Amino acid sequence: MQRSQRIRGLTGGGSDGWDVFLKARAMIADGIAVTELTIGEHDVRTAAPILQEMHRRAMAGHTGYAAVPGTSSLRDTVAARVQARTGVPTTRDNVVITPGGQAALFAAHMAACDPGDTALYIDPYYATYPGTLRGAGACPQVITAQAEDAFQPRAEALQAHAKAAASLLINTPNNPTGVVYSNATLRTIADVCREDDLWLISDEVYDTQVWEGQHVSPRALPGMAERTLVVGSMSKSHAMTGSRCGWIVGPEEVIADLITLATHTTYGVPGYIQDASVFALNLGEAFEADIAAPFRRRRAIARNVMARQNTLSLIPSQGAMYLMLDVRATGLTGEAFAYDLLEQHHIAVMPGESFGAAAAGHIRVAMTIEDDAFARALKTLCRHAEQLAA
Amino acid sequence: MQRSQRIRGLTGGGSDGWDVFLKARAMIADGIAVTELTIGEHDVRTAAPILQEMHRRAMAGHTGYAAVPGTSSLRDTVAARVQARTGVPTTRDNVVITPGGQAALFAAHMAACDPGDTALYIDPYYATYPGTLRGAGACPQVITAQAEDAFQPRAEALQAHAKAAASLLINTPNNPTGVVYSNATLRTIADVCREDDLWLISDEVYDTQVWEGQHVSPRALPGMAERTLVVGSMSKSHAMTGSRCGWIVGPEEVIADLITLATHTTYGVPGYIQDASVFALNLGEAFEADIAAPFRRRRAIARNVMARQNTLSLIPSQGAMYLMLDVRATGLTGEAFAYDLLEQHHIAVMPGESFGAAAAGHIRVAMTIEDDAFARALKTLCRHAEQLAA
Repeated sequence: MQRSQRIRGLTGGGSDGWDVFLKARAMIADGIAVTELTIGEHDVRTAAPILQEMHRRAMAGHTGYAAVPGTSSLRDTVAARVQARTGVPTTRDNVVITPGGQAALFAAHMAACDPGDTALYIDPYYATYPGTLRGAGACPQVITAQAEDAFQPRAEALQAHAKAAASLLINTPNNPTGVVYSNATLRTIADVCREDDLWLISDEVYDTQVWEGQHVSPRALPGMAERTLVVGSMSKSHAMTGSRCGWIVGPEEVIADLITLATHTTYGVPGYIQDASVFALNLGEAFEADIAAPFRRRRAIARNVMARQNTLSLIPSQGAMYLMLDVRATGLTGEAFAYDLLEQHHIAVMPGESFGAAAAGHIRVAMTIEDDAFARALKTLCRHAEQLAA
Repeated sequence: MQRSQRIRGLTGGGSDGWDVFLKARAMIADGIAVTELTIGEHDVRTAAPILQEMHRRAMAGHTGYAAVPGTSSLRDTVAARVQARTGVPTTRDNVVITPGGQAALFAAHMAACDPGDTALYIDPYYATYPGTLRGAGACPQVITAQAEDAFQPRAEALQAHAKAAASLLINTPNNPTGVVYSNATLRTIADVCREDDLWLISDEVYDTQVWEGQHVSPRALPGMAERTLVVGSMSKSHAMTGSRCGWIVGPEEVIADLITLATHTTYGVPGYIQDASVFALNLGEAFEADIAAPFRRRRAIARNVMARQNTLSLIPSQGAMYLMLDVRATGLTGEAFAYDLLEQHHIAVMPGESFGAAAAGHIRVAMTIEDDAFARALKTLCRHAEQLAA
């Protein structure tokens, strides 16, 4: 029986560079101790007080259908938070709650693009992006950022495809590179979006993980609030990855449309999870800093380790829970390096190639294990690179 | 800023007959006591033991990303249940877990239809259906079932549009009519699907609420397992509406595609909710019968009340939590009758027109309030109809 072409073509075919990850998982399943520095999962679980509030609200009866747009309480809390952080006037009518950030990315493209429209995204990219755009019926068009620019996209690269496009998807702080877009980059992006009448879809799920400089939400730039859809979530900021609670912030009219879309594609998010999210957001910045602290520490550890060698170079790591390392001096591709490291030292990292062509010859290291083990793994990784280069 | 045409056109425009519902909600917000017989929400909350298991699993650390296809445990449990109920061999590879039945309906159409394909559905229908098909980029084409056939669709109506279509969506036990499709109806549907090479998308979320006859899953009919996508959920069977946990059961290849789709559009369902769902499913049939029991009782009450009057006629109510009443003898449309009833007696029901043209002149009564209040409301409703008809 014939499945739809679109669903069969979702990943675009070809190797996606996730073989190393799968091999690491298979080794673990076989009982081999593998140091996993692959995916963006905290090494802490969701905090007990958040789970206790969730349970309290569920036992109190908040188990029926929640309002499809999200509870008023969570929408208000998200709106107030966004307004406080960006200065852009924001009310609940600018917010729709989604079952996670991934669902928000998909829905935002459903709203911004019609089938066949060109949707831009920037390489290196989070692995689901092109498939998400295809799922929404758009034609993904990649904009390449360069390693020598620390993966900040150039104006001319953006302009080259903007005329023919409906939307541009960006992610800062960036997964996989750990780069935070500069003010200059964001101004350029805003200029291009305004000039060529693009929707900007701004994935800001790492906005509480900034180690250097400052995260600026492009929705706050002149003329951008009316054309920006900001994707946020509880996952990274509050270690609530599994709870699948995210949102889109944008203009009222498109939020109204997105609520209609939610009625027909998801029908809301569990009320008790939304209540727990309100509780978690109200824990304030100190709690968020606690969740981010391990990555801040490990990033400092990594800079120390990296400073003592000359083979690998570290892409300026300004935010998010990842390091991007240039391994080209070893003569290997990112994928070959990752395979080698996994086989010889049982350390699993992601090849840059998993995140697009621009990050070829790089590896992504997730800072998601305990500090000492992280330092040891990184030292082993550096020594391995030195030996390869020698 | 221009939103996509598809998102602006999702509901197809025009009045959707939900004004009575919104008016009832507004009256309640104004402090008026309204007897609500509108939406399909149980008058019990999710059972405490299920919520306690959810909390236990969350506190034990199942708060990170759950496997995107669903946990092996829940997929196995759903597969075993489906196999036991239908006799069709079913393994976890035939199951993908979704964030609710609505998300399953959407995803199933994403897999069955390419943009522009014709997707059939049957009037009367659950209110989200046409918008869900449009959301998936399909062109919804309605098949009208007739009140005089107790809303069982006729072969010729199905055949009239099947040649040009990619899929057919059915729902039995049916919302809004309360009808359970007969073996003859299901055989006809299977014949049409096989002859014209259609996907059958079978919404069976009310499969534990059968008062008369027997629910047959069309996936069990000859040659249908390869072309049927069954939508199920925890919502109605286990009073877990707000927890948004559903699934699609189908052929392995399409389930594999649907897992890829989930990676790019939702990224899984909370692990602790899936664990609670396994626990709930393992409570067995007695628990499901307990959840269904109030509707079974109220359906008996309704038949007694209806037997004592001659103005309204009850569509054979064989399953699900709704009654469909023919009010045409009052000379009013379903919508006018519902408005009148709400204004004069503060009883809120859904106009048949909310569920398509075929149910015009009918009202849908949800059996979702306590027995005595339900009996009183129904008697008032009947008296009101008699007065109108007199």
